[in-house]
Amino acid sequence: MSEEQQRPAAGGQPPTSNHQPPAAGRQSPTSHTLWGGRFQSGPDPRFWALNASLAVDQRLALHDVRGTAAWVRAIADAGVLTPAERDALLRGLDAIADEFRRGAFAFAPTDEDIHTAIERRLKELVGEPALKVHTGRSRNDQVVTAFRLWLRDAVDDLDALVRDVQAALVARAEADLEVLAPGYTHLQQAQPILLSHWWLAHFWPLQRDRQRLAQLRARLNVLPLGSGALAGTTVPVDRQALAHALGFDAISPNSWDAVSSRDFAAEFLFWAALLGVHLSRLAEGLILFASREFGFVTLHDAFSSGSSLMPQKKNPDGFELARGKSGAWVGALTGLLTTLKALPSAYDKDLQEDKAPVFRVYDDLRALLPVLAASLRTLRVHADRAAAALDPATLATDLADYLVAKGIPFREAHHIVGQVVQQALARGVPITRWTVDDFRAVHPAFDADVHQALDPWAAVARRDVPGGTAPQRVREQLEQARQALQARP
Amino acid sequence: MSEEQQRPAAGGQPPTSNHQPPAAGRQSPTSHTLWGGRFQSGPDPRFWALNASLAVDQRLALHDVRGTAAWVRAIADAGVLTPAERDALLRGLDAIADEFRRGAFAFAPTDEDIHTAIERRLKELVGEPALKVHTGRSRNDQVVTAFRLWLRDAVDDLDALVRDVQAALVARAEADLEVLAPGYTHLQQAQPILLSHWWLAHFWPLQRDRQRLAQLRARLNVLPLGSGALAGTTVPVDRQALAHALGFDAISPNSWDAVSSRDFAAEFLFWAALLGVHLSRLAEGLILFASREFGFVTLHDAFSSGSSLMPQKKNPDGFELARGKSGAWVGALTGLLTTLKALPSAYDKDLQEDKAPVFRVYDDLRALLPVLAASLRTLRVHADRAAAALDPATLATDLADYLVAKGIPFREAHHIVGQVVQQALARGVPITRWTVDDFRAVHPAFDADVHQALDPWAAVARRDVPGGTAPQRVREQLEQARQALQARP
Amino acid sequence: MSEEQQRPAAGGQPPTSNHQPPAAGRQSPTSHTLWGGRFQSGPDPRFWALNASLAVDQRLALHDVRGTAAWVRAIADAGVLTPAERDALLRGLDAIADEFRRGAFAFAPTDEDIHTAIERRLKELVGEPALKVHTGRSRNDQVVTAFRLWLRDAVDDLDALVRDVQAALVARAEADLEVLAPGYTHLQQAQPILLSHWWLAHFWPLQRDRQRLAQLRARLNVLPLGSGALAGTTVPVDRQALAHALGFDAISPNSWDAVSSRDFAAEFLFWAALLGVHLSRLAEGLILFASREFGFVTLHDAFSSGSSLMPQKKNPDGFELARGKSGAWVGALTGLLTTLKALPSAYDKDLQEDKAPVFRVYDDLRALLPVLAASLRTLRVHADRAAAALDPATLATDLADYLVAKGIPFREAHHIVGQVVQQALARGVPITRWTVDDFRAVHPAFDADVHQALDPWAAVARRDVPGGTAPQRVREQLEQARQALQARP
Amino acid sequence: MSEEQQRPAAGGQPPTSNHQPPAAGRQSPTSHTLWGGRFQSGPDPRFWALNASLAVDQRLALHDVRGTAAWVRAIADAGVLTPAERDALLRGLDAIADEFRRGAFAFAPTDEDIHTAIERRLKELVGEPALKVHTGRSRNDQVVTAFRLWLRDAVDDLDALVRDVQAALVARAEADLEVLAPGYTHLQQAQPILLSHWWLAHFWPLQRDRQRLAQLRARLNVLPLGSGALAGTTVPVDRQALAHALGFDAISPNSWDAVSSRDFAAEFLFWAALLGVHLSRLAEGLILFASREFGFVTLHDAFSSGSSLMPQKKNPDGFELARGKSGAWVGALTGLLTTLKALPSAYDKDLQEDKAPVFRVYDDLRALLPVLAASLRTLRVHADRAAAALDPATLATDLADYLVAKGIPFREAHHIVGQVVQQALARGVPITRWTVDDFRAVHPAFDADVHQALDPWAAVARRDVPGGTAPQRVREQLEQARQALQARP
Repeated sequence: MSEEQQRPAAGGQPPTSNHQPPAAGRQSPTSHTLWGGRFQSGPDPRFWALNASLAVDQRLALHDVRGTAAWVRAIADAGVLTPAERDALLRGLDAIADEFRRGAFAFAPTDEDIHTAIERRLKELVGEPALKVHTGRSRNDQVVTAFRLWLRDAVDDLDALVRDVQAALVARAEADLEVLAPGYTHLQQAQPILLSHWWLAHFWPLQRDRQRLAQLRARLNVLPLGSGALAGTTVPVDRQALAHALGFDAISPNSWDAVSSRDFAAEFLFWAALLGVHLSRLAEGLILFASREFGFVTLHDAFSSGSSLMPQKKNPDGFELARGKSGAWVGALTGLLTTLKALPSAYDKDLQEDKAPVFRVYDDLRALLPVLAASLRTLRVHADRAAAALDPATLATDLADYLVAKGIPFREAHHIVGQVVQQALARGVPITRWTVDDFRAVHPAFDADVHQALDPWAAVARRDVPGGTAPQRVREQLEQARQALQARP
Repeated sequence: MSEEQQRPAAGGQPPTSNHQPPAAGRQSPTSHTLWGGRFQSGPDPRFWALNASLAVDQRLALHDVRGTAAWVRAIADAGVLTPAERDALLRGLDAIADEFRRGAFAFAPTDEDIHTAIERRLKELVGEPALKVHTGRSRNDQVVTAFRLWLRDAVDDLDALVRDVQAALVARAEADLEVLAPGYTHLQQAQPILLSHWWLAHFWPLQRDRQRLAQLRARLNVLPLGSGALAGTTVPVDRQALAHALGFDAISPNSWDAVSSRDFAAEFLFWAALLGVHLSRLAEGLILFASREFGFVTLHDAFSSGSSLMPQKKNPDGFELARGKSGAWVGALTGLLTTLKALPSAYDKDLQEDKAPVFRVYDDLRALLPVLAASLRTLRVHADRAAAALDPATLATDLADYLVAKGIPFREAHHIVGQVVQQALARGVPITRWTVDDFRAVHPAFDADVHQALDPWAAVARRDVPGGTAPQRVREQLEQARQALQARP
Repeated sequence: MSEEQQRPAAGGQPPTSNHQPPAAGRQSPTSHTLWGGRFQSGPDPRFWALNASLAVDQRLALHDVRGTAAWVRAIADAGVLTPAERDALLRGLDAIADEFRRGAFAFAPTDEDIHTAIERRLKELVGEPALKVHTGRSRNDQVVTAFRLWLRDAVDDLDALVRDVQAALVARAEADLEVLAPGYTHLQQAQPILLSHWWLAHFWPLQRDRQRLAQLRARLNVLPLGSGALAGTTVPVDRQALAHALGFDAISPNSWDAVSSRDFAAEFLFWAALLGVHLSRLAEGLILFASREFGFVTLHDAFSSGSSLMPQKKNPDGFELARGKSGAWVGALTGLLTTLKALPSAYDKDLQEDKAPVFRVYDDLRALLPVLAASLRTLRVHADRAAAALDPATLATDLADYLVAKGIPFREAHHIVGQVVQQALARGVPITRWTVDDFRAVHPAFDADVHQALDPWAAVARRDVPGGTAPQRVREQLEQARQALQARP
Repeated sequence: MSEEQQRPAAGGQPPTSNHQPPAAGRQSPTSHTLWGGRFQSGPDPRFWALNASLAVDQRLALHDVRGTAAWVRAIADAGVLTPAERDALLRGLDAIADEFRRGAFAFAPTDEDIHTAIERRLKELVGEPALKVHTGRSRNDQVVTAFRLWLRDAVDDLDALVRDVQAALVARAEADLEVLAPGYTHLQQAQPILLSHWWLAHFWPLQRDRQRLAQLRARLNVLPLGSGALAGTTVPVDRQALAHALGFDAISPNSWDAVSSRDFAAEFLFWAALLGVHLSRLAEGLILFASREFGFVTLHDAFSSGSSLMPQKKNPDGFELARGKSGAWVGALTGLLTTLKALPSAYDKDLQEDKAPVFRVYDDLRALLPVLAASLRTLRVHADRAAAALDPATLATDLADYLVAKGIPFREAHHIVGQVVQQALARGVPITRWTVDDFRAVHPAFDADVHQALDPWAAVARRDVPGGTAPQRVREQLEQARQALQARP
């Protein structure tokens, strides 16, 4: 295979300087500070490359530093470190955090993961006390602590971004209260609606998504640290104090469960996959509305792209990517669930596969959500085209209701109107242009007032129940949406 | 293809009498009471067979009757029905429910789905008033109302069944407080644990599952009825009263969202898939423990199966099915999410695929969970074999801790003990049989008290933090588990 | 939970008479003819219900009879049976096959699966020789043999059905050679195409699907029988002769692999999932074309459905179900792959989950494909509306090509035409109505012949390469498609 | 959110110098050479960042150069370029390829993807002729051409790597022909086997995988170039010659299909997911065998890892990662299928999501497969422990066969031996230590020769059919495997 195929994955970019993680697999580490004592031979470079997770988990750097600092305080309180050792270590950790923030942290070839990199650097900065940092701690509880801390921040970040998409939908709904549009079932025109109603139809699923996010955040925000490798730590640390220091709401009740469970990550990926379903449906609707054939909206040039070949093209790439990426998120969820299935131990190496899909989905959402919000805010609605697109036959239900009001049972009224529609199609005359006699030729219950049933604004106004598309009901709904935006989900 | 291939799906059993739903596709209905008025020709039998959902949705029968009865009262209150009509219809619905309960309901070839079957039967029993039942209602809001009612019952049912598995785990944990066993990471022996601790490690994920279930139940328990086809009903029904009558906590805020969203079903399937992950891990552990090589448990004969060929076999089929079916549940989730992705309308026919996976997963769980609970309660634990299986090398961490207590930094202690382990392997002498001099030959910090670090019970006792495997901590944990079982999740 | 929730899955309908399989879990079998010898207590009814697979695997009945008959001959040839025993057993198996064909086979409560049911019935019909049928055979090799036989028939059946959809596409392509339509990228009009070209764009993926199907059939058509439980049979049967008798192309090379592998089932489900992707894209296109906004096609009434509420509705349910079910097939694939992952043994009970998804997908396809073919054949194309829908701006590429022919580099030409399009939008005058001076005001290279570049038929004709949309090229392509239909894929 | 959360995805590393692609989204390009003409405003930086695919598709660089060089020759032959222009462009492309190989290619902020980057650089190097390169070509056909070229190389690479794992399995099978081991069903000991037989059981699925790979390669190796944006190119290029120049076997028959279909990528991902299933099963087996409880194999230190906390640990991380990553590959497949589902156009932007999962899976496999092969070659088998682990009860089938040879029907023999096994368990005396009288007490058919049935080597030898575990059969199978390795799959 030619050389370009041999490049490491995009997910594991080889470093080009010592300010980047070492190239996975290029160097065989000469010593194994972490676990070498029992081994006669060092790791094969290919095994090392496969096993090392630095390319992925370096993103946990600052969260690992934070978790380690809390651990240093905790084991100092437990008498494992002297105050002087503790303070030296905390200063060292501060310095390391600063290096990461400045992009100045230098990885070494022996850094197996971000945790060993930080411990190694701490030794360089602080000396012997660094050898005590891992007392009573295992990477098993250390990693999952850093991951939970990271994900908690990510969750808060995403909540704000989803909320901003909701705010953009509310803004649209406010703007489009006077816009009449066809409502669809089976992609066939069904009944007239207010376009505001449609925008809000996409608000509420996101509200449920944010509620789900808040609930998973609470499950996520539980401290695993102090669980050791699987059986609990032998250092008498105060886990409640540790939890408090790191902002966790509670401590894990079982050490095995604490290091082996990743349901918080699976739940996050499901959350994203379901959010993706909701975004994909909004996107699909807008891709349709932006087509020449529908023509209800025009996207802003700044949120559209063109074609390298066809000069006239203006494409809704942002919405297409929302739709396309939602598929990838379903895959991320499926992948993690499949990986987790039937794992036997408190920690199996398979769990190393937990972070990459979470990071990918987070990055996708961070890139996508602001584009969606801005696209919504900047698109133009063509009220005239939406109204003109309305097929008079969408008033057929109202025509049936008209007959019901004349005393005809609904099921019979439905049948009569079905015949009206069939004849309208056959004659090529829309029912709005039928005369009263035309109607009466189908059924004598039609009367001179029949045309009042054929006004789309009247039709909209008649859906006058909570949740209905009647203008006053949509205004009520808008107010509920505004309040939901203000409240904690 | 030979005839047996041509049989309809197991999911669409052909009826053998008029007490079963009609064979999909066998009869072409001669009239179309529901939607025929506008159509010049009736449906092709193949189209009818594909389109009909009766084989699946007949399970909603009693819930649809319940929803319809509430609708009848609501539109009577709104003046659409006279009190006499209302009462006749309610009596008819009662009779229909009774027919379903007795297995005496006779389906007709024109029954497209359970909802049309019930409306047709109502017409037969009550006459003309039945033609008014559908006033202001669409199948779109009707179906999803019945589905939510059904799933709410299913959720309650499953909560009780999962809780019973938890209770069985608590019972095991109570019974096995004196059982020492190896704890595993990477399926290698890691540290000694109490077997009780392991049972409880599988309790807590189920507790989180039940918490998730309670939270999704609240999202599920929202009334869609009154949303019409997509835009809201034109009949001025009191939706809050409807919700109250049907036991819903709230009403849907947007009619389009109400008929188009199925996140409640996706969330249920995710719940089941994640529960499946948890059950598969418990199952995997017990399949291992029940193997001859581990030998820690023996399953009861009543929950084991044999082989058609090998007379000696006794197989843990129940646990294998838990593991195997968990894969199918991941598939059910993936399937529904993929179906939902990018649907454009308030209702697309694709949504017909929402119920079959939910029913399948529910049936699987109803069959499986009681077997798991009973298998747990009836298996025998071999405390002697579990203790005998313990590799003395699992005390290596405690040996390192011993050195730490002697003032050696942990990282250095880890390395020293690594060398001890390596020599023990090379010499074929487990460290529990080493002399003090043997230890001192590796490092002078070892002292006469070294063997105190090599007692597995002492090792267990030293994991004395909340969530640790120390006996008193496991007892505390057991008490927490018992309280969790008593409380609402 | 109310009683209706407690009904077994639709997939496991309880029998209502002895001509149906027994209700899973309702009866506790009193004896265990197959594997009871080693067991002190019989199975718990709940365990029995969970473990029994009859509700699913009864579909293999005739294929199991066929495999068993071949086995009877093979072990008779190997001296295990006398000719008289052999003949009696073959007559018994014939009788059983006949019972299944007539729907007269009576299941017994002790029938754990279809294989034990048939062996039990054989004993009733033939007596003691039936006790010898299982000599040297295990259910492990027996089941997978029957499953492969079944699936081979299913594959042949589906090949014919997919081919018929292809034939319908060819027929459409033949009919629509004179129909000009917009071609889309990003759902924006891109360039004019022949509608025939679009139909054929959906032909070729199905051709690749059929090629994949033929290739998987060859991998599927390998005999596992003779592999025993896992290690090979001890009866010296002639496996090549067995393969020949059952129509298999080859024999499995390794007995463990033969009973443990299900890649043939996974490959079939992937085949179906990918076919589903292709059908979903065709369906999506037609759902769009059938919308009022596009309006390019009208479906036949016989392949459309209406609405219970809205009398005017005519919905493309068949295409929506193609799209919706494709999601379920992705789920079926995911589920089986997840189930198979990391299974440790030659046979684990998890493999019982292999058949249900295959049956479901097969049934879906058998119901769906004929509807798709007939829908394609019966729909009406509106050539006038398709042509009228063409945006003149779709000729922008041809306008750029025009400039290229005048000596302007393509990238510059693209930019110039981009400005033309922008001005056309701003002025509201489509480029087909621009004067030569209008064009020259943008760039002097435009000349009097510019309007020749703005004829859609000319544009189509200029895509004159193999695979292009030029009429003569589409005719060539049609001929290739016809030949592909005639050949073995 | 804190800054570290805001870093771009690992998949889109920000460049730290101009020798890396520009940071997605950091710069807003000031001009849009590709598609700007029609746009009034430039892209929003957030939209640009989302839309740009350079971070992913830069891996196609050399393949795009190759495809572009072929295109340059083809349009020169068609008269679009002069020979001088052609030669200048080819020299420029050579220089660009060289820059990529040296890591010296400098990306610019306006580079939207690798294709625009190369066209931009070509302009810098060659000047005006570069503006003609895109004549008659669209990114739609350009991208998929480069992707197919890349994947063809990747496929060849992976074929060799899978073949090497097969070779390692053959080497193991050759080495372990004298090793007796328990064979398992339901993870319970079933029958004795040769360990060689087990190694080969994992050889054949990989052989089928390689056959599938060869077949998908043929479908992959079809030229899309010349399809333009969707309707075919207007430049009269010789597509057959283009195909020949690029090593493609055939040309695509339909331009729309050529740019819109990604079944080749989906098929590749399925191939990898199924390979993953096979590797996961091998890995699971070896993780079990390497556990203390089984103890059949010891991994080489160079392919094992240790623990940061527990000094004695030696973990089979390579096999665990094989198992864990197989889950991620199922997810990659699911994700792409879900993304592809129901796409309506010849090209939708959703298709941009096609490459990342393919690259990820390829990188995983390239890292993993050599580790697996080397791990297999370097592990040690403990023949003594495997033989000692054999439960005498695994000879129960042979004992039943013994009774069959005495004239007892198999089903009855099975039952008798079941009782023998039960008594052996109850008495705690394995059947190998039973006296003849012990056996006769259960059934009189047992005779003095009964112990001959209880020799595991005899048992193995009796599985003497093709595919069976008898030593001579395994040797035959080994020879077949060697031949399969030599042949093209």
